[in-house]
Amino acid sequence: MPAQLSRNPPPSDSGPPGQRADARLNRARLLQAAREAYALDGTDVSSSAIARRAGVGAATLYRHFPTRGSLIAAAFSEQLGQCVAALDEALQDDDPWQGLRNVLTRVCMMQAQDRGFSAAFLSRFPDAPDVHRERARAEACLAQLVRRAKDTGQLRKDFHPSDVTLLLLANNGVVRESPAASMAASRRLLAYFLQSCLPTDATPLPQPAPLRLDDLYKPPRRTG
Amino acid sequence: MPAQLSRNPPPSDSGPPGQRADARLNRARLLQAAREAYALDGTDVSSSAIARRAGVGAATLYRHFPTRGSLIAAAFSEQLGQCVAALDEALQDDDPWQGLRNVLTRVCMMQAQDRGFSAAFLSRFPDAPDVHRERARAEACLAQLVRRAKDTGQLRKDFHPSDVTLLLLANNGVVRESPAASMAASRRLLAYFLQSCLPTDATPLPQPAPLRLDDLYKPPRRTG
Repeated sequence: MPAQLSRNPPPSDSGPPGQRADARLNRARLLQAAREAYALDGTDVSSSAIARRAGVGAATLYRHFPTRGSLIAAAFSEQLGQCVAALDEALQDDDPWQGLRNVLTRVCMMQAQDRGFSAAFLSRFPDAPDVHRERARAEACLAQLVRRAKDTGQLRKDFHPSDVTLLLLANNGVVRESPAASMAASRRLLAYFLQSCLPTDATPLPQPAPLRLDDLYKPPRRTG
Repeated sequence: MPAQLSRNPPPSDSGPPGQRADARLNRARLLQAAREAYALDGTDVSSSAIARRAGVGAATLYRHFPTRGSLIAAAFSEQLGQCVAALDEALQDDDPWQGLRNVLTRVCMMQAQDRGFSAAFLSRFPDAPDVHRERARAEACLAQLVRRAKDTGQLRKDFHPSDVTLLLLANNGVVRESPAASMAASRRLLAYFLQSCLPTDATPLPQPAPLRLDDLYKPPRRTG
């Protein structure tokens, strides 16, 4: 392993284009293993456990990701980027309530399709300042969207931005074994949630079909 | 270990009153360990893992619980009994919607206080016929309660009994590190859920105080 260290110079976190094919493969494996491990055990999981899960040596991990924070940031940058893009889009919507509904639907569906994604949204990363900054920006955008939707009278006045986090935690709980069952459960949960976000004199929202109990009882898939 | 087998005759699952103090202690340890392991990994977890977690030998486990099903049934009988009692009480309520709200609140608070409890409600136990029977009875009671609440016009017509399971899964997702934070999150989630269960012309329900984001970001406590 130490011999390899001198063969490959440490790549940057973003994976430079000139990176060798096997280095790129190892990097992808490490990111996937990290996302899985974080999803299962939170971001306290040890680097050596992530290296083992990825099937690479500890030296390879440290070559790609010299600090814990750089691994966490790289593991979640894509997902966080997608969330921020969804929020930016929602803020450009002339109808802020429609924008908020769209962003919540998009994020809930992302959760339903990828358990690892939830970790990006639902964990704190004190030692990853980039992630922290990006999240702070996402939270500021969300607060703005909530305020605008309240101002138009489409969102109940006692709605609080932390209710979005509550929804995402709840949605994480309904993720099941198959993505199809997960998405069905998410859709119904989201419909209930959005319905109760309306002021009481609003037209009720359509409700998706009820779920089959057997689909709900299948446990969530483990990513490890 | 085999020597002990001949010293203590196998006790029944309910833990007979004449059971020796150390046998009672082992039984309690095994039940606690089983509940924790089921909560973390589902009921597929091996008996030897449960014995290890309880700090007893495999022979002791088999002496107390000769079959997998008997351990599962014993681990969850108390919790299931509490749920069935809550449902029975709700069915005796003259106001079925009030009864349904009470039972959902009670079960959600039980979940918030004991993660292991969720496993009792949210798993299938194909090899534990007693649990299966008790659950089937609970589901029948619930269906009756839902029907009655719809008949009085207090519950929206498109509510489905599987929505209760959806709520319990969602509630399981919002359980946090401290029981206090868990109960606050559960209460707010439940208030949103119940609000959206009302027919649209109903008087809105009171909403509990919004949550502190920092409480939500603390991960759920691991029971192992």
